[in-house]
Amino acid sequence: MPNWLLPEHIADVLPSEARKIEELRRLMLDNFRRYGYELVMPPLLEYVESLMTGAGQDTDLRTFKLVDQITGRMLGLRADMTTQVARIDAHLLNRASVTRLCYAGPVLHTRPSGLHATREPLQIGAEIYGHAGLEADAEIQELALASLEMAGFAEVRLDLAHVGVLRAILDLDPAAHRDRDAIVQLLRAKDVPGLRELTAGYAPATRDALLALPNLYGDVDVLATAKHALPDLPGIAKALAELAALAASAIGRADVAIDLADLRGYQYESGATFALYVPGLPNAVARGGRYDHVGEAFGRARPATGYSMDLRELARLLPTADRKHAIRAPWGNSPELKERIAELRKAGEVVIQSLPGHSDEQDEFECDRALVLDESGSNWILKNLG
Amino acid sequence: MPNWLLPEHIADVLPSEARKIEELRRLMLDNFRRYGYELVMPPLLEYVESLMTGAGQDTDLRTFKLVDQITGRMLGLRADMTTQVARIDAHLLNRASVTRLCYAGPVLHTRPSGLHATREPLQIGAEIYGHAGLEADAEIQELALASLEMAGFAEVRLDLAHVGVLRAILDLDPAAHRDRDAIVQLLRAKDVPGLRELTAGYAPATRDALLALPNLYGDVDVLATAKHALPDLPGIAKALAELAALAASAIGRADVAIDLADLRGYQYESGATFALYVPGLPNAVARGGRYDHVGEAFGRARPATGYSMDLRELARLLPTADRKHAIRAPWGNSPELKERIAELRKAGEVVIQSLPGHSDEQDEFECDRALVLDESGSNWILKNLG
Repeated sequence: MPNWLLPEHIADVLPSEARKIEELRRLMLDNFRRYGYELVMPPLLEYVESLMTGAGQDTDLRTFKLVDQITGRMLGLRADMTTQVARIDAHLLNRASVTRLCYAGPVLHTRPSGLHATREPLQIGAEIYGHAGLEADAEIQELALASLEMAGFAEVRLDLAHVGVLRAILDLDPAAHRDRDAIVQLLRAKDVPGLRELTAGYAPATRDALLALPNLYGDVDVLATAKHALPDLPGIAKALAELAALAASAIGRADVAIDLADLRGYQYESGATFALYVPGLPNAVARGGRYDHVGEAFGRARPATGYSMDLRELARLLPTADRKHAIRAPWGNSPELKERIAELRKAGEVVIQSLPGHSDEQDEFECDRALVLDESGSNWILKNLG
Repeated sequence: MPNWLLPEHIADVLPSEARKIEELRRLMLDNFRRYGYELVMPPLLEYVESLMTGAGQDTDLRTFKLVDQITGRMLGLRADMTTQVARIDAHLLNRASVTRLCYAGPVLHTRPSGLHATREPLQIGAEIYGHAGLEADAEIQELALASLEMAGFAEVRLDLAHVGVLRAILDLDPAAHRDRDAIVQLLRAKDVPGLRELTAGYAPATRDALLALPNLYGDVDVLATAKHALPDLPGIAKALAELAALAASAIGRADVAIDLADLRGYQYESGATFALYVPGLPNAVARGGRYDHVGEAFGRARPATGYSMDLRELARLLPTADRKHAIRAPWGNSPELKERIAELRKAGEVVIQSLPGHSDEQDEFECDRALVLDESGSNWILKNLG
């Protein structure tokens, strides 16, 4: 096997694509900053116990493990940065008030999440800690929508869900609560016959509510339907009101869809959750939501809500950037030439000095001008090329 | 053991430090770009065979290994990005002409390289492929010096060395060539008694040359001394001439020192090498040099020269940045407020909306202004805060 072959679902990023990713990265980090989010950089490697704190079994399976040669203990390569940032909020910063943090970095997965998925996503995201109110969820949602808008995606679909609906139903009925894992799986699979069978012995109110969920998806009108189809519980009323407010705040920025049986984040989420979709990709490009108990697992209960996305995937959906204009300059040690080149670079120009005996070749730059001596032979001037 | 404890020599980067690193990263990548370097992003994980191609045993020991669950083959986490970028030049881009590439990303080491070293450096670097002449070495050296200058380091020491000197001596004498690994080790340790013992049976010319090397360090005058102390071989003359040219091109930008017994990169380097030092750190902050055979190991011989440095270490040496000014705004859904905030953010201001019932707390931002309603109660204005 040739030594330049890469593992499956692992790839180099070449210049034109790398530039797109870098530009997106800066655009989004700069936007996070304008909202007051502070950048943190958690490590790639941690003890497995830390990485798994508050995370589900799927995270465990996705995480590469290796042995620390210093301590002999098991290390994991982060498969997700959310828990890490929650750890930073809970233990390192340890602030009493609201904290806004953002991050961007690679994560690794033992297996790809889909047929064409990478095992090395470049995760970027933002989180608010310390505020339990819906305002924080609204700000995160706005930030996620603004990020896609800035990246150039005009058509965005926002899918809203809320784990509070199912929680309220399960809390009502000990039998249902006992079967919660099975119920979540059946709802995720929208397996109505299976759900019908499992809930056969439940109290009729619970059963009706659970069987109603798989049909409660569509546009915002679903919220009105849900109000009648679901029992009148405080938890449900609160969840529906939150979804209505979040849907309203996205008007004009995204097509909003509601799916009350979307329980993708049921293991760790604790409130409203959302997913963003753009044309050209069946999977969500961004996911977010409330997950108040993550900090608790690190010994400090803090409300938390945030979102993240994969910059590599996002960049792939965008058109290749045009080649950037550049200036070709000859090699030479004359102080005038060097000074002129330095000036041009200082002004933001790309100046490529040709190494003697070679032509240059670039994916990214197109030399549309050359630095040449004028007829007097004493001044370096820019000449337009072809 | 608490679940928020990190492994030794692994650390989170908190806001004020993360911002410094991010700013340095952009500054340097932007500068690389103005010189015509194209950004590439090699993966964190590769097959061990690829990562070890052209690399020495020390790289092998520094590399974390894990098993690919898809193929059962051994993967390595990159401990260095140089070989990866050489692979990209040799196989993916496969250009006939000169190629300039740059990169920035984390690497991982099984053990720290020193007492206070991190196991997760953030490596940034630049490489030129396809030009064997000294012009490429000079450009790389200039780029490295410019990077430190831009980062704010005023006092820089440039240490120059050249593996061609020892190569020429060893090529002259089969006995010495056979003992080359031992000789390199003794020279690295500046162990003159050991060198005297090992070389006792060598031809006098070889012996004298080898014993002269440990004393050939100091300022540029060393090059003149070396001319007399070392045999008159084409390889040595070429190496000394190259060092003289490189030293001359750094005048005014760094204090230049020559060390002809510096063989740190002897395993993979093939020409002139350099190291940059700044006050406050005994180790080099940047290292570079020529390593023409790396591409060859990937089946395509290409001259190569480049340099790299650790952004985390570099950032640590710089003073903490001042807190950035920001604007505090109240929470609210009024379109006028929202519009005003959006305008301010668009103009580059950081606007932090206070979430109801909370104060904000930031390391990075200092709210020196607040967005408030004026006396008429209809216009949002900026008010200076004490």
